[in-house]
Amino acid sequence: MKKTLLLLLALVAAMSASAQWGGRTITDTIHSRILGVPRAVNVYLPRSFRADTARTYPVLYLLHGMHGDNGSWEWMQASQVLDRLINSGEADEMVVVTPHAGGNPALEQNGYFNVKDWLYEDFFFQELMPEIEKRYRAGGSRDLRAVAGFSMGGGGATAYAQRHPDAFCAAYAMSALMDIPDNGAAVPAQRPDDLIDRLTRSVQANSCTNFVTNADEATRNALRSVQWFVDCGDDDFLLDRNLEFFHAMRAAGIPLQLRVRDGGHDGEYWHTALYTCLPFVSRAFSANK
Amino acid sequence: MKKTLLLLLALVAAMSASAQWGGRTITDTIHSRILGVPRAVNVYLPRSFRADTARTYPVLYLLHGMHGDNGSWEWMQASQVLDRLINSGEADEMVVVTPHAGGNPALEQNGYFNVKDWLYEDFFFQELMPEIEKRYRAGGSRDLRAVAGFSMGGGGATAYAQRHPDAFCAAYAMSALMDIPDNGAAVPAQRPDDLIDRLTRSVQANSCTNFVTNADEATRNALRSVQWFVDCGDDDFLLDRNLEFFHAMRAAGIPLQLRVRDGGHDGEYWHTALYTCLPFVSRAFSANK
Amino acid sequence: MKKTLLLLLALVAAMSASAQWGGRTITDTIHSRILGVPRAVNVYLPRSFRADTARTYPVLYLLHGMHGDNGSWEWMQASQVLDRLINSGEADEMVVVTPHAGGNPALEQNGYFNVKDWLYEDFFFQELMPEIEKRYRAGGSRDLRAVAGFSMGGGGATAYAQRHPDAFCAAYAMSALMDIPDNGAAVPAQRPDDLIDRLTRSVQANSCTNFVTNADEATRNALRSVQWFVDCGDDDFLLDRNLEFFHAMRAAGIPLQLRVRDGGHDGEYWHTALYTCLPFVSRAFSANK
Amino acid sequence: MKKTLLLLLALVAAMSASAQWGGRTITDTIHSRILGVPRAVNVYLPRSFRADTARTYPVLYLLHGMHGDNGSWEWMQASQVLDRLINSGEADEMVVVTPHAGGNPALEQNGYFNVKDWLYEDFFFQELMPEIEKRYRAGGSRDLRAVAGFSMGGGGATAYAQRHPDAFCAAYAMSALMDIPDNGAAVPAQRPDDLIDRLTRSVQANSCTNFVTNADEATRNALRSVQWFVDCGDDDFLLDRNLEFFHAMRAAGIPLQLRVRDGGHDGEYWHTALYTCLPFVSRAFSANK
Repeated sequence: MKKTLLLLLALVAAMSASAQWGGRTITDTIHSRILGVPRAVNVYLPRSFRADTARTYPVLYLLHGMHGDNGSWEWMQASQVLDRLINSGEADEMVVVTPHAGGNPALEQNGYFNVKDWLYEDFFFQELMPEIEKRYRAGGSRDLRAVAGFSMGGGGATAYAQRHPDAFCAAYAMSALMDIPDNGAAVPAQRPDDLIDRLTRSVQANSCTNFVTNADEATRNALRSVQWFVDCGDDDFLLDRNLEFFHAMRAAGIPLQLRVRDGGHDGEYWHTALYTCLPFVSRAFSANK
Repeated sequence: MKKTLLLLLALVAAMSASAQWGGRTITDTIHSRILGVPRAVNVYLPRSFRADTARTYPVLYLLHGMHGDNGSWEWMQASQVLDRLINSGEADEMVVVTPHAGGNPALEQNGYFNVKDWLYEDFFFQELMPEIEKRYRAGGSRDLRAVAGFSMGGGGATAYAQRHPDAFCAAYAMSALMDIPDNGAAVPAQRPDDLIDRLTRSVQANSCTNFVTNADEATRNALRSVQWFVDCGDDDFLLDRNLEFFHAMRAAGIPLQLRVRDGGHDGEYWHTALYTCLPFVSRAFSANK
Repeated sequence: MKKTLLLLLALVAAMSASAQWGGRTITDTIHSRILGVPRAVNVYLPRSFRADTARTYPVLYLLHGMHGDNGSWEWMQASQVLDRLINSGEADEMVVVTPHAGGNPALEQNGYFNVKDWLYEDFFFQELMPEIEKRYRAGGSRDLRAVAGFSMGGGGATAYAQRHPDAFCAAYAMSALMDIPDNGAAVPAQRPDDLIDRLTRSVQANSCTNFVTNADEATRNALRSVQWFVDCGDDDFLLDRNLEFFHAMRAAGIPLQLRVRDGGHDGEYWHTALYTCLPFVSRAFSANK
Repeated sequence: MKKTLLLLLALVAAMSASAQWGGRTITDTIHSRILGVPRAVNVYLPRSFRADTARTYPVLYLLHGMHGDNGSWEWMQASQVLDRLINSGEADEMVVVTPHAGGNPALEQNGYFNVKDWLYEDFFFQELMPEIEKRYRAGGSRDLRAVAGFSMGGGGATAYAQRHPDAFCAAYAMSALMDIPDNGAAVPAQRPDDLIDRLTRSVQANSCTNFVTNADEATRNALRSVQWFVDCGDDDFLLDRNLEFFHAMRAAGIPLQLRVRDGGHDGEYWHTALYTCLPFVSRAFSANK
C-alpha cells in the first residue's frame, strides 16, 4: 500500500512540483521619482536564474492593455507558456517584465506615453528599464531586449520600438491599438483632467501608422534593424488599424510578419499569441549572439 | 472628440462585451440523496441557449482532477476556448458540465467511482446526469453525449465510457490516471477511513487498462462503438500508464487516437487539449445526426 | 530470419499499403458538347467508396490555378492530406473533384468563366457537375456540395459560390485572384484572340469584391447562407485583393472567416491550407445533415 | 490593358519567381573510393549562399528511407518548407544534404551501416561529409551539424549521432527504424548475397535501443551533449520501436523530446515533421553560437 500511496501522492504533488520545474514570477516595486509614486512590476525569472548567478539573460518587456496592470499576464498564465516553451527548447530562458501602466482608466492614468503630469515613457526608459535590468541581470543592450504587448500595450510596444530602435531587437504586437482614427469631429474645450481623453490624444499623437508613413529614409533604415510582428484576430475591432499599419510598413519597405488568426479582442488570443511570440523573440536574441 | 472617445470606450468595453458574444458558465447545485449532500456543478451554456428555447444541445461532461472541483476548468479558462471554437465553427454549440468530485483529498473523498459510504458513480449516472440534462435541454441519448477529463478525471472519463458505452459516443482522456500500478508490496491492514487509500484502491479496481485486456468479445464490440482519444504529454509522469492503455486497446482491436504533445502534468496542457478535444467530440455528435 | 525478414518487408510495403488504407484518385473524362472537346477531370474517391455502393458522398470541387490542370492538386499531394484527415475523423469521407481549366495560358484558354468561344462556366454547371455527381454518387444538393481553390481557382471558387449560392454550402478561397485592379490605362484595340487578355477581362468582369459591394439585400441574404473562408499568405502579392474582399464582405454584413498565415503564393501554402479547408467544409456538410 | 496584363503575368511568374525567392537544390556526385562507385547527393543551398561567399552555414544531413534515394526529400517538397521557415525566421539558413543510401532493395544495398563489401558508414563520415562541407562551406564542427531522417533514415540518423556524438549537436528521428525485433526464429544458413538480409542484420546489430541500454556512463554522458527528438505517428507500424527507444533513453537519464502525432508511415508525416525538425535543429545551432 505504501508504494501505491506514494504514486498517488506524486499526483497530488504534481501541480506544486511544476513550480520548481519552471520559472517563478515575482512582484517588485520601482520607486519612481518621475511619476512620484512607487510602481509595481512583475518579473518572471527563468528556472536557472538562482543557480547561474553569473549569467545575464535576455529580457522581454511584455505590456498589458487598458484596465490591466502588472498582474494581467499572470491572469493569462504567461508563465505556464514560458515554462513549457523554455523546457522544450522552443524559447530561450529569458526574464520577462510586465510593468504597471493601467488600472481603472476613469481613476488612474492608463497608457505608455508621456502626458501632462504623468511622464510614463520617461519613467519606462529612464527608471524602470535600467533598474530592472540591473536588479535581475537582464538585457543591457538591444541584442538582448525585446518588447511585446496586447491592445494598448501592443501599440505601446510598437511605438517604443519605433522611437527607440536602438533599444530593442524585436517587437511583437498583439491586437494592437496602433492608432485611433480622428473622425474630424470638432473637439470641444477639453476637460483638462480627463484621463481617458489624455490617453486618446496621446495614442493619436503617437500613431504607429503615421510614424512609419512620415519617417524619413534614415529613420526607416533604423526601423529595418528591428524584427517586427503583427498578430491580430479576424474578429478584432482593431483589425483595420493593424492592417493599416501593415500596409504602411510594406509601403515603407520595412519587412514584417503578419498573422491574422481566428479570434477577437480577448485573453485567449493573447495567451495563444505567446506560442508565436516567445520563439520569435528568442530567434531575434539568438541572431545577435 | 466624442467619436474618438467612443472608439476608446469600445476598447474599454471589449472584455465585458465578449461575455455576451459567447456562452456563459453558471454554478448550479444537485441535491443528492445518494451522497446525502448538496453538490455543486458548473454548466457552460452556449450563446444561443437563451434564445433557442426549443433546442436540445449535445453535452460534454468535462471532469477535473484530484484536488480540483467544479470550478477547475474555469480556472483553466475552458469557456474562452469554447467560445472561440464555437464562433469559428470548429466546435458545435454544446452544454459543458463539470461536476464536483474533488476538494482537499485528505479531508474530502475524491474520485469518480463508488467507494464505501460514497457512491459517486451512482450519483453521477442516476442523479446528476438526468437532472442536468433535464434542466438544460442537453444530451438525452448517447449520440449527443461525450465525456472528457484530465488526470483523475481522464481516468474517470475513460472508465465511465468503458462501463457505459451506451451512454457516450466519445471519450477524450487528457493525462489520464488510467491505472495505479500495484508494486506487489504487502498491503498492511488498512485504515478504513483513509480517503486517499480508498481512492487509490478504487482506481486500481477500475483500471482502464485491465478493463480492456479482460473484456470479452461482446464488450469489445460495444467499446468499438465509442470514439476514443488519448492525449498525454511527453514529460508527464503518467505517460507510461497511457501508453499501456493504448497498447491494450490496439491489442484488443479497438480503434483509438493517440497524441503525445510537448508538456507535463499541468493546466496549460489541458487548456490546449481543448483545441483538439472540442472538435473531436463535435465530430462525434455530428456523425450521429 | 524469416520473421525479421517479414518485418522488414512490411517496411518495404508500407508506402504501397497506404494506397489501400486511403482513397484513390482517378482521372476521368467529360465529353463536353459546350466546349466541343473532351475534358479531363480528377476525382478522389474515399476509401469506403467501392464497398458502400449505396452511399451518397458530399463533394468538394477543388479548383487549380493558372498554368495548372486537373493534376495540380495531386502534385500538391492533396490525397495524402485527405487520407490523413479522413482517417483521424477530422474530415468527412468525401468525393473531391478537380476539373481542368488551365494549361499553358498562351496556348490554351485558362479560367473558370464564360468567354468568347469558351463557355467554361456553362460547361461546369451544366455538364461537369451533374455528370460527375451521377457517376460517383456525390453531392446532388447544396448541403453536400462545397467549392475551394487557389489563386485563379480561389477566385473561381468564390465567384461560383457567389452566383450560385443555391449550389454550394461552403466556399474556401486560398490566395485567391478576387479581382484584377483596373489601373485606368487606356486599353488599346485588343487582339481578339489573346487568351490572357480574355482571362484578364473575365476576372475583372466577375470581380468577387465588386459583386459583394454591388449586391442588393436579397442577394446578400442569399450569400449569408454560404459559409465563407478567406486564407492568404502575408507575403502573397494578392494579399491586398483578399483584404479588399474581406472588407467588402464585412461591410455588407456577410459573416466570413479570415486567416493570414505565413507564406507566399506557392504550393506549400495551398497544401497546408487543406488542413483548415477540409475540416471547414466537413463541418458545413455536417451542419446540414 | 498593359498594366492589367502585367499584373496577371505576375501571377504567371509567381511559381518560377519563388525559385529566386528561396534556396535551390542541386544534385552533386561524390566519387567514392570506399564504395567504388560515384554516388549522387542532393544539396539544398539557402538563398544567400551565392552572394555571401565568405559565410559558413550550418548543415543538416536529412536521410531518406528504404527504397528512396537522394531525391526522396525533394519528392516530399522539403525545399518548400525550408524556404518558408527560413523566410519567416523560424529556421536558420542552412545547407541540407540528402545522400543516396537506397534504390530498389532487391538489387541495391540499402542502408546507412557498414556491411560486407559496402562500407556505407565509412563512406559517409570519411568521404561524403568532409567533401560536401568543403564544397559548400557547411558544418565543419559539431556545433553546426545535425542529422535527421525518416524510417530507415530515422534509424540511421539516430545511430550516427549515437556513435558520433562529437559530430552532431542534434538528431531528429521521424518514424524511425530504431531496431528490428529478433523473434528468436532459428536463422538458417544465410544466402551471403541477400541484400535485404544484410540490411536487416545491420539494423539489428546497430539497434538504437540496445545502444542506449548497454551504454556505460561515459557514453551516456556523451549522449547527453546531443539534443534528441523522436517523432512517430500513432498509426505507424514502427510506433512500438520508437516508444521502446524513448523508454530506454529516459531510463538512461538522457533527455529527449517525444511527439506522437496523427498519422502513419507516409510522406505527409515526414513533410509535416519538417515544421518541427527545422526549428529544432536551428535552435541547436544557435545554442552553440
